[in-house]
Amino acid sequence: MGKDNKAETAITPTRSLDYAEWYQQVVRASDLAENSPVRGCMVIKPWGYALWENIRDVLDDMFKETGVKNAYFPLFIPKRFLEREAEHVEGFAKECAVVTHHRLEEGPDGSLIPAGVLDEPLVVRPTSETIIGDSFSRWVSSYRDLPLLINQWCNVVRWEMRTRIFLRTSEFLWQEGHTAHAIRAEAMDRTLQMLDIYEKLAQDYLAVPVLKGEKSASERFPGAVNTFTLEAMMQDRKALQTGTSHFLGQKFARASEIKYQSAEEKEVYAWTTSWGVSTRLIGAIIMTHADDNGLVLPPMIASSHVVLMPIIRKPADKTTVMDFTHSLARELRGQYYHDRKIAVEIDDREAHGGKGWDWIKKGIPVRVEIGPRDIAQASVFVGRRDRGPREKESIPRDQFIKTIVRMLDEIQKNMFDRALVFREKNTKQIDSQEDFYAFFTPKNQEKPEIHGGFALAHWCGNETCEEKIKTDLSVTIRCILPDAEEETGRCIACGDKSTRRVVFAKAY
Amino acid sequence: MGKDNKAETAITPTRSLDYAEWYQQVVRASDLAENSPVRGCMVIKPWGYALWENIRDVLDDMFKETGVKNAYFPLFIPKRFLEREAEHVEGFAKECAVVTHHRLEEGPDGSLIPAGVLDEPLVVRPTSETIIGDSFSRWVSSYRDLPLLINQWCNVVRWEMRTRIFLRTSEFLWQEGHTAHAIRAEAMDRTLQMLDIYEKLAQDYLAVPVLKGEKSASERFPGAVNTFTLEAMMQDRKALQTGTSHFLGQKFARASEIKYQSAEEKEVYAWTTSWGVSTRLIGAIIMTHADDNGLVLPPMIASSHVVLMPIIRKPADKTTVMDFTHSLARELRGQYYHDRKIAVEIDDREAHGGKGWDWIKKGIPVRVEIGPRDIAQASVFVGRRDRGPREKESIPRDQFIKTIVRMLDEIQKNMFDRALVFREKNTKQIDSQEDFYAFFTPKNQEKPEIHGGFALAHWCGNETCEEKIKTDLSVTIRCILPDAEEETGRCIACGDKSTRRVVFAKAY
Repeated sequence: MGKDNKAETAITPTRSLDYAEWYQQVVRASDLAENSPVRGCMVIKPWGYALWENIRDVLDDMFKETGVKNAYFPLFIPKRFLEREAEHVEGFAKECAVVTHHRLEEGPDGSLIPAGVLDEPLVVRPTSETIIGDSFSRWVSSYRDLPLLINQWCNVVRWEMRTRIFLRTSEFLWQEGHTAHAIRAEAMDRTLQMLDIYEKLAQDYLAVPVLKGEKSASERFPGAVNTFTLEAMMQDRKALQTGTSHFLGQKFARASEIKYQSAEEKEVYAWTTSWGVSTRLIGAIIMTHADDNGLVLPPMIASSHVVLMPIIRKPADKTTVMDFTHSLARELRGQYYHDRKIAVEIDDREAHGGKGWDWIKKGIPVRVEIGPRDIAQASVFVGRRDRGPREKESIPRDQFIKTIVRMLDEIQKNMFDRALVFREKNTKQIDSQEDFYAFFTPKNQEKPEIHGGFALAHWCGNETCEEKIKTDLSVTIRCILPDAEEETGRCIACGDKSTRRVVFAKAY
Repeated sequence: MGKDNKAETAITPTRSLDYAEWYQQVVRASDLAENSPVRGCMVIKPWGYALWENIRDVLDDMFKETGVKNAYFPLFIPKRFLEREAEHVEGFAKECAVVTHHRLEEGPDGSLIPAGVLDEPLVVRPTSETIIGDSFSRWVSSYRDLPLLINQWCNVVRWEMRTRIFLRTSEFLWQEGHTAHAIRAEAMDRTLQMLDIYEKLAQDYLAVPVLKGEKSASERFPGAVNTFTLEAMMQDRKALQTGTSHFLGQKFARASEIKYQSAEEKEVYAWTTSWGVSTRLIGAIIMTHADDNGLVLPPMIASSHVVLMPIIRKPADKTTVMDFTHSLARELRGQYYHDRKIAVEIDDREAHGGKGWDWIKKGIPVRVEIGPRDIAQASVFVGRRDRGPREKESIPRDQFIKTIVRMLDEIQKNMFDRALVFREKNTKQIDSQEDFYAFFTPKNQEKPEIHGGFALAHWCGNETCEEKIKTDLSVTIRCILPDAEEETGRCIACGDKSTRRVVFAKAY
């Protein structure tokens, strides 16, 4: 039974040995994606793309229920559009792909060279506030046209210097919502409402517990008035942002001239918001749930729910085993797991001893082995991905069919609970600067082991203090919790008076 | 009742007056899309994007049923990849957007200029054979890895000089399927199978009748061995391609080194295919069905099925009318129209006389007016988009609910039948060169009226003849019908012997 009888793990190295390399190996072993020959760009393979499709479908329904409509805007942004909002262009100029020519022609040496210089360079969208703002300025003229609630699913490009698959890639897929409102409070409500939707996605679907809060000024989206964020703890105890929602005030409305005539016939600027999540969420799923045997997929968005593995040792058994397998598949597929039909894979590759391990590495929630002996007993041999690879049990076929939904729900719940326990175990209230520095300093500098976590510590609100901690420890304020208790204390950096704790962590 | 009592049309100019301008005005009046400030790129507005989403969902299900899986590949293609297949690069070099820099920085005059020159220019994908081929070369090593059946939904860029919204835009959305096979015949079967799926989409969903056939050599996809196509007749009697599927032989496999070890342990090249449809299909819907009052949407993929327009003339009626409207909406939405729930809009804008006309222009299949008098009779006042704007009838509410699905089916069928009659009326067997030239020559050269159609004429198979007709008349061979009868005749261009007729037409 392959690795089944050995103590070794399916992924080498393990998390504790080399976390960064473990991550790459999980991505490879699970067949989610691969690096492409184009610098920093990835190829999302079918197993990974199915995950993204499921995330998309869940979010899309939630968006549409709140009145949001999908649309599509150009990939290219004229340079002058980006320049309209000073902080915004400052934030993106350093990492944008620029289109300068519109054809290739034969050069002197016979190879093709760029030709047909564009009058104005075009930037491949890193985000679309400015190009969508341009449309909004034409779509809005009266208060009756508001609110505008628009979302687009698309690719964006940010020319990152150091890339890591799913977490930081030059091109990634995302959705970006953009809304315009007549009333400030309505725009702020929308900003928070979308953050709540992301929280629901993270916790109820991805099984990733998140903290919800606001970013400090230095961590805001370029040009935003307020940026709200979800922060999750990965298994190396670093934070990963799993959704952001921005209240843009009237800044982008001014930049793009989104004006409307109010009921009092005055011409005023609209209030806008934007919000997005990306394929980075797949990185969050991996780093929250995967273990030393590979990926572990939350059933609510798993690429597939169940794999059936017929075991045929003698040709004579083939018909019986395959008939049993197909009839089981049919009955499973006829059921719903929440809003989606149960998705079933049949792995009938011949004479492949490592089948079970392939599916463990791919993180499928439930594995079912079907051999002549199981069939004789009208039972199936079931392994769950939230349990050890050898912890398999025989279950009567009919009972398995009846309880599959409950089993998937249990797996989903176990995954969330484990992640929550992990986060709570690694979240500390810290009051002294010495403890704070010790918390974020690896004990062995040569080979930095996993350390730190979320520190709830006091901050005076001063950017210099934030900057000092970032320089000293590479630790940043992940978020300011909205419901943090008022509590007097001393700033962890300068010792000045502070009225509240914020969440500090190392981050992706 | 606004334009309702006048003889004039909602769209100016009409089709017969100025077809090209009529098209632009239909797009504008229906709120499908708009031109963007970025040359040749469009903004797809919610009403148009919903149409694309419906097309996507229908196709995606059909693809997946045949074993195709979705994935995602990089937007950027290194120049050297494109160069690997000579005909392919020749076909796309003249119209590609080239990324040459990866940041913007402040220039001498303070404005931002492109900086950070890339080592190798990157082309924004015009199509992805070469970049996907690169992945395939890594994914395939044994015959057991084949077939590979992959599709991606994405944006592509072809820098067109003359653009027309939906029909020819610099950026457009599409799906591109790419498959690799061990056996030549299997690849050819797949090529034709996907064309059949496109035919089903066109005829059963878009209500667009199509001819199915093969392209002549000069009209093939750059690098393909065979290109198969669907051709539809627009209302100006020109042809529009509504799907193509390419058998690529081993040409792209050689270019990308897609090799596998056969069962006999020989290393051989795979056989590949590619196939795609794009947002151009929305242009086909408009030009097949729209009339002088605007868009007409086929119910099977309509952005929405029914609009309810409450009519409230006295404030006292409001509650009754709105309650009636919402309960009707609820009952309609509870039903399925084929695979999709019935989509219902409620237009409760106040005191807006042109409401009905707005929805006629948007092409919604069914309009329902609900006033106090209708409610008193427990009936609704219904207009169908496949009938005249004033041809409305009172229907008992419960009967309307019971028959809505049948009504939508009738509309769908009427639309297809009308389009088919139109095509047949404008398809002619032509045998003399004189008749052929007369068929494709407008009677008034000053203001070319709508003329021509599909000519079934003999062609000897010689490219010179094809070229001559193209030069003289801007007429091309749209396709060679696979099931054309063997029939001796004389080539319409040179008079030489020919064994079959092909379809000639002017085209988009």
